[in-house]
Amino acid sequence: MKIAVLGGTGRIGEGLACRWAPHHEIYIGSRDIEKAKNAACGYACQLTDRGIDCRIDGTSNKEAVEKADVVVLSVPYDASLELIECLRPVLKNQIIISLVVPMKKNRWFEYTPPEEGCAALRIQHMLPGISVVSAYHNLSFKKLCNFDLEIEGDVVVCGDYEGAKKVVMNLTQEIRSVRPLDGGPLRESRMIESLTPFLINMAIRNGLSDLGVKFV
Amino acid sequence: MKIAVLGGTGRIGEGLACRWAPHHEIYIGSRDIEKAKNAACGYACQLTDRGIDCRIDGTSNKEAVEKADVVVLSVPYDASLELIECLRPVLKNQIIISLVVPMKKNRWFEYTPPEEGCAALRIQHMLPGISVVSAYHNLSFKKLCNFDLEIEGDVVVCGDYEGAKKVVMNLTQEIRSVRPLDGGPLRESRMIESLTPFLINMAIRNGLSDLGVKFV
Repeated sequence: MKIAVLGGTGRIGEGLACRWAPHHEIYIGSRDIEKAKNAACGYACQLTDRGIDCRIDGTSNKEAVEKADVVVLSVPYDASLELIECLRPVLKNQIIISLVVPMKKNRWFEYTPPEEGCAALRIQHMLPGISVVSAYHNLSFKKLCNFDLEIEGDVVVCGDYEGAKKVVMNLTQEIRSVRPLDGGPLRESRMIESLTPFLINMAIRNGLSDLGVKFV
Repeated sequence: MKIAVLGGTGRIGEGLACRWAPHHEIYIGSRDIEKAKNAACGYACQLTDRGIDCRIDGTSNKEAVEKADVVVLSVPYDASLELIECLRPVLKNQIIISLVVPMKKNRWFEYTPPEEGCAALRIQHMLPGISVVSAYHNLSFKKLCNFDLEIEGDVVVCGDYEGAKKVVMNLTQEIRSVRPLDGGPLRESRMIESLTPFLINMAIRNGLSDLGVKFV
């Protein structure tokens, strides 16, 4: 499968790209092509050093999307809306995976959903007919980026298109020790999005860091 | 410590009562005193059979509250509001622990918070000056009631009174293999309350049951 990771120079993007690279073609997208190429090169080196064959390229967001079957949106909320506007002409049948969480920080982090109820629904409304799936908001990026650690987290996957949701659940299953869970329709993304600032605040309050979630 | 468990004839009430009974005096409260007495007797027998000394009595909700330092509200949302009205005259310095989740069921469960934002804030507004703490919404009652199982869950505790929150976190720590986490002020209870219907729905969708939550 060909996977574009937009915001792929960030930590979660890095983690997902590296976890999927042994089995898929990865395109790291960024506004800054040089940055995307450098990141892709760095990830490929990490994997090669571990004896893992892979194909990771860095390119522009637009070109990454044109080549992809699946597009991972791992960018801040405001940037994601601008990006989607720019990408609309090259979106056809790709599955969009939203990791987007609208939040602001005062003393603590606060979830600030749009009037649609959550970021994923806002993105879906901007892209009628395109399969938007919401997932990977609450994965510990430190664990995702460290291949020697067991992640032991759950990934809740929400979406209104069952086929697309199934593709994302299968991609999730490929990440060692991560369990995909069907979270229901896209509107339920509100819960997993709002967990993100809650987890950050709770980590700060309790002297923890980089919390993910597991349903036991 | 003297702990009243209102709704103590339900499963979560049973679990908490039995877990705390070895170290505290427990008063099971119910509208139906006979039912409360029978439940208390049953719980005490379970513990005695395991060689654990305990004191668990069944009584009316009002008498249970009069005797208690800590009052656990383990009743449905609508019933909790009526109950609080009745109990107001006997509430003094007790700490109220709200397990209350306002939700309705159509095809799926849906969180239906009051205009205050969550049940715990509604209850706090009804009881100015009383320490309301929100906790234990997402504990697996099957694991809580089965002393041979490791619960391995986290309990998020929210409240605006730091002293009362500390008491509840200490009580939580006494439950084997459960970790208390400070969830912040009472308004954050919205997150842990709304997780309840989400977890029930997710359990149904994924062929699981009785899900709790752990932050990893």
